[in-house]
Amino acid sequence: MSNKQAVLKLISKRWISTVQRADFKLNSEALHSNATVFSMIQPTGCFHLGNYLGATRVWTDLCELKQPGQELIFGVADLHAITVPKPDGEMFRKFRHEAVASILAVGVDPEKASVIYQSAIPQHSELHWLLSTLASMGLLNRMTQWKSKSNIKQSTNGDYLVNDSDVGKVRLGLFSYPVLQAADILLYKSTHVPVGDDQSQHLELTRHLAEKFNKMYKKNFFPKPVTMLAQTKKVLSLSTPEKKMSKSDPNHDSVIFLNDEPKAIQKKIRKALTDSISDRFYYDPVERPGVSNLINIVSGIQRKSIEDVVEDVSRFNNYRDFKDYVSEVIIEELKGPRTEFEKYINEPTYLHSVVESGMRKAREKAAKNLADIHKIMGF
Amino acid sequence: MSNKQAVLKLISKRWISTVQRADFKLNSEALHSNATVFSMIQPTGCFHLGNYLGATRVWTDLCELKQPGQELIFGVADLHAITVPKPDGEMFRKFRHEAVASILAVGVDPEKASVIYQSAIPQHSELHWLLSTLASMGLLNRMTQWKSKSNIKQSTNGDYLVNDSDVGKVRLGLFSYPVLQAADILLYKSTHVPVGDDQSQHLELTRHLAEKFNKMYKKNFFPKPVTMLAQTKKVLSLSTPEKKMSKSDPNHDSVIFLNDEPKAIQKKIRKALTDSISDRFYYDPVERPGVSNLINIVSGIQRKSIEDVVEDVSRFNNYRDFKDYVSEVIIEELKGPRTEFEKYINEPTYLHSVVESGMRKAREKAAKNLADIHKIMGF
Repeated sequence: MSNKQAVLKLISKRWISTVQRADFKLNSEALHSNATVFSMIQPTGCFHLGNYLGATRVWTDLCELKQPGQELIFGVADLHAITVPKPDGEMFRKFRHEAVASILAVGVDPEKASVIYQSAIPQHSELHWLLSTLASMGLLNRMTQWKSKSNIKQSTNGDYLVNDSDVGKVRLGLFSYPVLQAADILLYKSTHVPVGDDQSQHLELTRHLAEKFNKMYKKNFFPKPVTMLAQTKKVLSLSTPEKKMSKSDPNHDSVIFLNDEPKAIQKKIRKALTDSISDRFYYDPVERPGVSNLINIVSGIQRKSIEDVVEDVSRFNNYRDFKDYVSEVIIEELKGPRTEFEKYINEPTYLHSVVESGMRKAREKAAKNLADIHKIMGF
Repeated sequence: MSNKQAVLKLISKRWISTVQRADFKLNSEALHSNATVFSMIQPTGCFHLGNYLGATRVWTDLCELKQPGQELIFGVADLHAITVPKPDGEMFRKFRHEAVASILAVGVDPEKASVIYQSAIPQHSELHWLLSTLASMGLLNRMTQWKSKSNIKQSTNGDYLVNDSDVGKVRLGLFSYPVLQAADILLYKSTHVPVGDDQSQHLELTRHLAEKFNKMYKKNFFPKPVTMLAQTKKVLSLSTPEKKMSKSDPNHDSVIFLNDEPKAIQKKIRKALTDSISDRFYYDPVERPGVSNLINIVSGIQRKSIEDVVEDVSRFNNYRDFKDYVSEVIIEELKGPRTEFEKYINEPTYLHSVVESGMRKAREKAAKNLADIHKIMGF
């Protein structure tokens, strides 16, 4: 086993937990031989470090591990993306292309994985409607994501303080977002879904809807997909490390993009918010969110535990050296993806062909499965 | 102009109200020369008198009046139907076929109108998702239909007494039903939508979403469809004339089906709940709901005003004669549709060919319009 690989605890078939914490580097036992892995990312343009470490790098690992019977479907969640209004159609189209270029740039192999646009496969929306006739409003009301995305205030213990006027302003799409996500996943009878921690609750809902459908129609049709949580903790904003790193952050110094030049990366890391303890660097996300975020980024990139990274950086006694070390690690990791991204973004025809071939395969499976679902339901 | 026709008040182009009360018998001025009329009915099996008078008879009138530039699309709303669970797939499939047989049996001409299954045209569900990212939860919360269908209690003045636990049990599909309805209508850029009074609020929402889309993308893409309210008031249950006539009523004596034998019709009318005033028959829906319902049915069938029918029945001084008169009027009207229904229901291949050809045409328009919508939005 190569030094990049770490052995995952042997998972006995009967006790497969519905939630797996993927190790830094997946190994072949993580998936059974005819697993179908499904995952998507929103098209917010070129990927940033959070997208890379939190989602798409696992896709690359899965491509490397892929066995003949397995199927990998990775997509651009452009139907989810419009739950936040995108009034500029041209800009949105550009973001979608950049997302595909980013997927290929991080190393996803279109020979091994189907790369798709969610919006180009009608069955996603069709199954969304069918599942929405099973999903109760009460269950959706308990989801937290639509509340956080609608900036609904939280009490000190983290509970959301929802009042009618807040809910009134929320758009139906944001509220029913997890049902579309369930449709995306179940449409391909997916068995494994790599997601970030914040999507865990939606995977619970997906399993619930799968079970409810199977029970109502007395068929064992949908498998209950396993949640594969990425090992790397959430990558936070460099300027406000209480928040996720996000493209929508007005301060672009808080985000490291896949196609940032080395100079820009170094400048952003140097400007990253830290704290006044300037001679020791250790992991304490509550007291030292900024430093811990940088340590977490190095840990994710080097696929090392936090402890090992803290060990490595203990030799630094000033912010300049510590931060330049962090920059070097990021610059080295993104060298390949940045070059590939620039290449792909200037080859729209190739990008188009990759997505077309990915969609041909995915459409076949989507059409077959939806036809089976329609038959069961009486359509 | 034939004696069946009544002249509609001339509608000046600028002041087209968004709501028209169709006359008993539509006339050619009701629709402009390139109108697109869209309407659907839920597949609850063979039509009953309420379906016939409240919805589908207008479709037949529209077929007779159709001018070359106009388009008529009438469908089976089978995606809407599953907002009330249908765990028996085979039964549901049978209901869908019976609905098509009923549409043809009442005289809708498949040469003049496209007869479709909603579920067989993916673009309905696709546009539903796109519009759900525009529809606010507050607006949907004010719709009354999901409350009445969820048996949510009403106060004496008719307001719904909605509490969280009630809403919690409601299924997302029932709550977002009007958004799918808006998608159905807007998908074909429909200009006129014949509906019953209880759907009027949903047509308001449809116009609101059309306007919101046009404004957000600065395009005059969707027309604002005109609501065409049927002239016949709601046909009520024969046994509990406070409620709509409905197939789901456990007491089948309360419903007159298109394929009821004359004997059965007579028996049901004789058993219809009326009141103790047995020698005079006049229209007073509050005090005499049963008698008024029968008068309204005759008025709808004969395309006569309530007053004229009250005039006609003033000659009766006992229930037997009055009720037998009502039975005769119904039996005569349903003679044709009953024979046709029996014919069509035994010709599944023909039914299939009618729907296939209707859907081919509708799919073409649906695919083109959705492609245009995708282009505007950036997909």
